[in-house]
Amino acid sequence: MKQFMDKDFLLSTDTAKTLYHDYAAKMPIIDYHCHIKPQEIAQDVHFKNITQIWLGGDHYKWRLLRANGVDEEFITGKAGDKEKFQKWAQTLEKAIGNPIHHWSHLELKRYFDYDGVLCAETANEVWDLCNKKLSSPDMSAREIIKKSNVKAICTTDEPIDSLEYHKTIKADKSFSVKILPAWRPDRALAIERDSFNDYIDELSKSASVKINSFEDFKEALKKRLDFFNAAGCLASDHALEFIPYYPSSDKEIENIFDNKIKTSVISKEDELKYKTALMLFLAKEYNKLGWVMELHISCGRNNNSKGFKRNGADSGYDCIGDVFSGAQAAAFLNALDFTDELPKTILYSLNPNDDDIINSIVGCFQSGGIYSKVQQGSAWWFNDHKTGMIKQMTAFANMGLLSNFIGMLTDSRSFLSYTRHEYFRRILCDMIGAWVENGEYPNDLKALSKIVEDISYNNAKRFLGFDI
Amino acid sequence: MKQFMDKDFLLSTDTAKTLYHDYAAKMPIIDYHCHIKPQEIAQDVHFKNITQIWLGGDHYKWRLLRANGVDEEFITGKAGDKEKFQKWAQTLEKAIGNPIHHWSHLELKRYFDYDGVLCAETANEVWDLCNKKLSSPDMSAREIIKKSNVKAICTTDEPIDSLEYHKTIKADKSFSVKILPAWRPDRALAIERDSFNDYIDELSKSASVKINSFEDFKEALKKRLDFFNAAGCLASDHALEFIPYYPSSDKEIENIFDNKIKTSVISKEDELKYKTALMLFLAKEYNKLGWVMELHISCGRNNNSKGFKRNGADSGYDCIGDVFSGAQAAAFLNALDFTDELPKTILYSLNPNDDDIINSIVGCFQSGGIYSKVQQGSAWWFNDHKTGMIKQMTAFANMGLLSNFIGMLTDSRSFLSYTRHEYFRRILCDMIGAWVENGEYPNDLKALSKIVEDISYNNAKRFLGFDI
Amino acid sequence: MKQFMDKDFLLSTDTAKTLYHDYAAKMPIIDYHCHIKPQEIAQDVHFKNITQIWLGGDHYKWRLLRANGVDEEFITGKAGDKEKFQKWAQTLEKAIGNPIHHWSHLELKRYFDYDGVLCAETANEVWDLCNKKLSSPDMSAREIIKKSNVKAICTTDEPIDSLEYHKTIKADKSFSVKILPAWRPDRALAIERDSFNDYIDELSKSASVKINSFEDFKEALKKRLDFFNAAGCLASDHALEFIPYYPSSDKEIENIFDNKIKTSVISKEDELKYKTALMLFLAKEYNKLGWVMELHISCGRNNNSKGFKRNGADSGYDCIGDVFSGAQAAAFLNALDFTDELPKTILYSLNPNDDDIINSIVGCFQSGGIYSKVQQGSAWWFNDHKTGMIKQMTAFANMGLLSNFIGMLTDSRSFLSYTRHEYFRRILCDMIGAWVENGEYPNDLKALSKIVEDISYNNAKRFLGFDI
Repeated sequence: MKQFMDKDFLLSTDTAKTLYHDYAAKMPIIDYHCHIKPQEIAQDVHFKNITQIWLGGDHYKWRLLRANGVDEEFITGKAGDKEKFQKWAQTLEKAIGNPIHHWSHLELKRYFDYDGVLCAETANEVWDLCNKKLSSPDMSAREIIKKSNVKAICTTDEPIDSLEYHKTIKADKSFSVKILPAWRPDRALAIERDSFNDYIDELSKSASVKINSFEDFKEALKKRLDFFNAAGCLASDHALEFIPYYPSSDKEIENIFDNKIKTSVISKEDELKYKTALMLFLAKEYNKLGWVMELHISCGRNNNSKGFKRNGADSGYDCIGDVFSGAQAAAFLNALDFTDELPKTILYSLNPNDDDIINSIVGCFQSGGIYSKVQQGSAWWFNDHKTGMIKQMTAFANMGLLSNFIGMLTDSRSFLSYTRHEYFRRILCDMIGAWVENGEYPNDLKALSKIVEDISYNNAKRFLGFDI
Repeated sequence: MKQFMDKDFLLSTDTAKTLYHDYAAKMPIIDYHCHIKPQEIAQDVHFKNITQIWLGGDHYKWRLLRANGVDEEFITGKAGDKEKFQKWAQTLEKAIGNPIHHWSHLELKRYFDYDGVLCAETANEVWDLCNKKLSSPDMSAREIIKKSNVKAICTTDEPIDSLEYHKTIKADKSFSVKILPAWRPDRALAIERDSFNDYIDELSKSASVKINSFEDFKEALKKRLDFFNAAGCLASDHALEFIPYYPSSDKEIENIFDNKIKTSVISKEDELKYKTALMLFLAKEYNKLGWVMELHISCGRNNNSKGFKRNGADSGYDCIGDVFSGAQAAAFLNALDFTDELPKTILYSLNPNDDDIINSIVGCFQSGGIYSKVQQGSAWWFNDHKTGMIKQMTAFANMGLLSNFIGMLTDSRSFLSYTRHEYFRRILCDMIGAWVENGEYPNDLKALSKIVEDISYNNAKRFLGFDI
Repeated sequence: MKQFMDKDFLLSTDTAKTLYHDYAAKMPIIDYHCHIKPQEIAQDVHFKNITQIWLGGDHYKWRLLRANGVDEEFITGKAGDKEKFQKWAQTLEKAIGNPIHHWSHLELKRYFDYDGVLCAETANEVWDLCNKKLSSPDMSAREIIKKSNVKAICTTDEPIDSLEYHKTIKADKSFSVKILPAWRPDRALAIERDSFNDYIDELSKSASVKINSFEDFKEALKKRLDFFNAAGCLASDHALEFIPYYPSSDKEIENIFDNKIKTSVISKEDELKYKTALMLFLAKEYNKLGWVMELHISCGRNNNSKGFKRNGADSGYDCIGDVFSGAQAAAFLNALDFTDELPKTILYSLNPNDDDIINSIVGCFQSGGIYSKVQQGSAWWFNDHKTGMIKQMTAFANMGLLSNFIGMLTDSRSFLSYTRHEYFRRILCDMIGAWVENGEYPNDLKALSKIVEDISYNNAKRFLGFDI
């Protein structure tokens, strides 16, 4: 029996152990998509206690607390931080088989040197230990990033963002980790929302472009794209229910846009046409800029009205969506590929049922001297666990070249989440180790270590084009 | 090599063996959803031979017989019981990897002390042995229930049922197992059927309520709900193709109902509106009564017209459905949650592709001091096997708190099916054992044994509220 | 650690080894569905070099080359064969976990006695060795077939095909392997295409039937069915996006057909009605002839317009489809079953999400003294790998009688693909071996060897009715 989370955690074979310890573990981290607030890095924040860093904004954990019947008071409510932590400890011990159990203990080990098990019984001891540790200077946001061997981080930013914190960070020569903005224009797509017309105004101001038409709107976005590009941006990101493909004429889109400005309403069909047109426009711009296009699809958001009213978006009320259409996704990619304007693309689906179809689709649009130019992204959110990762990487390997996979990202709001890269790398090495020891791939350490190092770090660096 | 179905059947690790033999195996059984006929318990029936108890009503087995090319004569037809049994033996030996092969042999072991393998060659010996055993007094319906360590059973009953057999059983102090009715109002939902207007009449009589409107209809159902509640009912159950959410006004529903009464026809849209309205009404009533709402979805029924004509419903001609909509399911649950009227809910889908999406949806509606108030039910029917159970429990664990899972039920028509609880518990313990021995969860026997005992028995007892 | 692809490749247990080496490996091959050109057998072609036999028409490999960023010049373009091979070697070494890595090395071992690993470094040595070998007389198409222990092959042929090469082969008494045509009337179904009216003319000529109506069209097809039947045809095959069931009257279909002839256009609804009608007609004919109906569904074809323009169909631009409807598939089978006209049927889906639903549907239509008369076909194309095969066979076993499974086919365009049967048989034996050694099925070698031999060969022979 292996001890809980010992040094060979998740590593079942000697090959896996060698690949992980001697190669994967030594590679730096590029966290090319996350929700870290640049302000917190700019200000090099300290967290007062473990509740604030762990439970302050982590809706994954909130969901588990709710699943344990805990009152909202102790989750997002006014209860004290210590009480909240105790509720969390009581909940965590019930989370057998859940990745958050693993993540939490990896974080306790790596950042707090705690080798025990967090449960109701040990809650006090962990509370004290963590908080003491958090008060030390080497546990600020930047210090955590540095000690995690992170070389680059891409945040998630609105086109109208001033990127002031990115500038501050860049200007500070004492901190050499690249903190780059990533372009996430969800509000520009969201023509169905009441607030869309307000967004037009905000964008207009931000870009200093008067917006009276879709042409103007695109012009304003272009200026912001250039602004982001100048700030070092390498990637865009989109949250989409599915990838729409409802092509229409420029004139139609102008009418739809004009109608929205004037009446504030829009039909479902017009919404999809607009989104198609804007996505095509943006994708072509990304391609010109050499950016990567990341598409996060198949999420059903804000399902709980009471919770949304209380906590707003991103508070633990989202689910896996089931409206992805392979035919439309393929048609969208094809429209871009046909004119040689398809950017490097990463498709993430929240629905693991889409793994195979996505890997079959991306295989239709490879080209242009780029290793796996269109590829499925790492297992995401509800799939960010051992079975999800194995499923995603198996589908990738079965239908494509796993060696070209750009690997893991945290997608996290927390500075302690870099251990998810460790988690991923262990699973990757274990998968490959099992193949090798089962005679399914040659036992060639030179080839294997290269594959593992590439997926851990080199592929992401090259694919996104980091200058590090 | 392990012997076929030895005492450590399905238990691969020492931890699994300990957890199963020392803890899980010792827990009593609550069979909180099955299709046992209460009459058979009230009358404490004996079965004449193994064909009658095994093949009399078990459409799972009928399907395998048909898959082996056996003529209907020997399945549901007039052939003799011994001939039918021989056909079954010939079929079973071909069912490698099929759960029915496991179930059948577990039943032979546990109830008939037969340790051999049933196949064409041994059919005669098994026939004789089983029939001899069946003739002994300790093989009546009640005796089988008692020796299976069953503490409570929920049957499946129509709202108009008199529940006379439940009363008889309850009145008989010599039999202490709780046999409770469960409310299954499928006919009340089935407004699309020709027989719906007849049902209105039957319900009207049963409830002594004159029904001229949907209001009256609900009033009648309310009276029956109270009647069931007084008889100890703790749970409702619904068979739905999917969970519909087509909200409409009270007036609309009255019109739809009125129109159905008068013309006997109904449009698809009106059918869905009606079903939504009735489901919302019923769910709120369940919540008031403290009942659990069980929703069985994603079944496509009666696909074989010739077979349906010959054998009626539930005769082996059903399949997995693929019309589940996550968005509608979430909207339905949200509508109830928004007014604090969502009852404890168990979602079963016949489509294993729904496992992940369901577990992501239930996580949006947890609340109220109840452990995993909304949860996915045990792997059901076509998924009631090792791979199906592992898949369902893995999805549950990945996205929620497996420790709160209320576990197994037989869903069976047969008194020999209690071994399915054994089958489930072995798989559960094996899964957990593997995690522990692989260092993925702490080796803490106190915590582990509690989890296993809870999932085997305690959680179901608490969740449904059994007074045992 | 096992050596890469040693004699026990993929065989983890002693039982698996015994079953494979002593039984499965010894069975001949029936390749009951493939895309081998009969002309190449008739002419007993030799291949000039390994690029021609491996990369000449294999779009699976083209996809991997493209995924590695290789320029089309070196894939389907004008680059030299040796350069193309070098690109392939560079690509293959990155294909860890991909079945093509396994297939390629199995082919190198079995046909070229090469035990090394093909990669950039060894490309020259493999190029020389293979080409030398290919120039020897025992590496002609026929010799490869013979040394692969192939007893029968079903090709894929258009109804208007003259089957001249089949006749030539049959007439040549020096070659005793059965090379039978299989009926693939995709063009007859494709009423939505512009070329459909041309097809009517071609069919008219081929059948010597004047075609002015759908009745005439069916009459012409009937004559061709008889012609194929006389040539020994045992099976039909269809490529369908999904199985449609839009029933309509004869008169409607005549109008649809007439309208297409006259106007060349057709609505989506009419297309589906036409396809339903023609599929029902053909299925009934297959049933009369005793043929097997093979339905290949859930493929989305020709997604890349640029690639299609350059390379035409079947050039690596297809993907998994997601529009399968279980309800329609069941209704289609039911319509045939209801009048006792359902032929033996094999359903292949390209979407692995359909595995369970398909196995649940086929279980509704078993009958007639035929072992698993309707069954899911072997894991296909994008699923033709270890995980895909295990998933498909597990679903088959969970819901039906795996012992009746008719097993593997190559679906290939290449004469070297017979090793895929070996690949399949190893995986089959490993799956069964694991069950047995884990105590999940009795360790009865007589029963097990029969199951393995049946699935490897006997079942296909009996199911299709080969006279060999």
